[in-house]
Amino acid sequence: MTPDPVADVHRLLAERGATVATAESLTGGRLAALLTGVPGASATYVGGAVTYATALKVSMLGVPETLVAEHGVVSAECARAMAEGMRRVAGATYALATTGVAGPDLQEGKPAGTVYVALAGPAGSEVLELELTGDRWAVQDATCLRCVELLRSVLVREETTLG
Amino acid sequence: MTPDPVADVHRLLAERGATVATAESLTGGRLAALLTGVPGASATYVGGAVTYATALKVSMLGVPETLVAEHGVVSAECARAMAEGMRRVAGATYALATTGVAGPDLQEGKPAGTVYVALAGPAGSEVLELELTGDRWAVQDATCLRCVELLRSVLVREETTLG
Repeated sequence: MTPDPVADVHRLLAERGATVATAESLTGGRLAALLTGVPGASATYVGGAVTYATALKVSMLGVPETLVAEHGVVSAECARAMAEGMRRVAGATYALATTGVAGPDLQEGKPAGTVYVALAGPAGSEVLELELTGDRWAVQDATCLRCVELLRSVLVREETTLG
Repeated sequence: MTPDPVADVHRLLAERGATVATAESLTGGRLAALLTGVPGASATYVGGAVTYATALKVSMLGVPETLVAEHGVVSAECARAMAEGMRRVAGATYALATTGVAGPDLQEGKPAGTVYVALAGPAGSEVLELELTGDRWAVQDATCLRCVELLRSVLVREETTLG
């Protein structure tokens, strides 16, 4: 991925005096690494969690155990709860979350490439459901790219609506 | 970096029934990404925190505010507290932590390349103080590599001592 969409997101966040945090499962830190790869990122990126184990989704992000029991961690509901929890924990304007199956093995009976991306912000939250192809790295990379695109589109939309 | 030292660390952890977690500042998620880049990583990697903002080092990892006030976040003391805090939060056997100056700007009056890496485990904790050269990416990459090497050396040593 070129650094351009990432730089664009940091610029849009800075213009609004806004910040972002990340809660990652299948991307395992790659989204945070992407967002912090740009000098000066600390002005708009506050931090995040890599909640690989289910227990950490509960303890670090406050994802309800009942939600995990009912929907599993590879679900839109879990992605949304991770984003909302991370936003609260970090005190950030926005939070992005990723959960899904990087592969190669199935998880919760779902195939590699099944991915949920969530964004929580002041105007509520939304979830993208993706079915991605490719190997483990391709799935992780595509997920990170879609996160950045989702945040950029929301920032542009809210700028238009509120600005 | 070749994936070999990473695969080696996962193998050594699995042999001991041990797990690892990560708490990152200047590496911004790259250490987590490195450790989760290998299929099957979830058996030994439980998760981590990217505490870019100082406030998150306190709220997510329990680094004492008094420690930050006295030593700053670019310090051996902060690295050790991050690793010990992460180990507790994640319930992991080991935790690695990184703090320092990726650059290009100075932080707390310290130059780019000033880095502290800490490892907390059942036998206590240790801190590596590094002065690295190169640009932001080189400093981040070298820090991640030293983390993996530190964990591997401790696992090999404890295997020899305890095994």
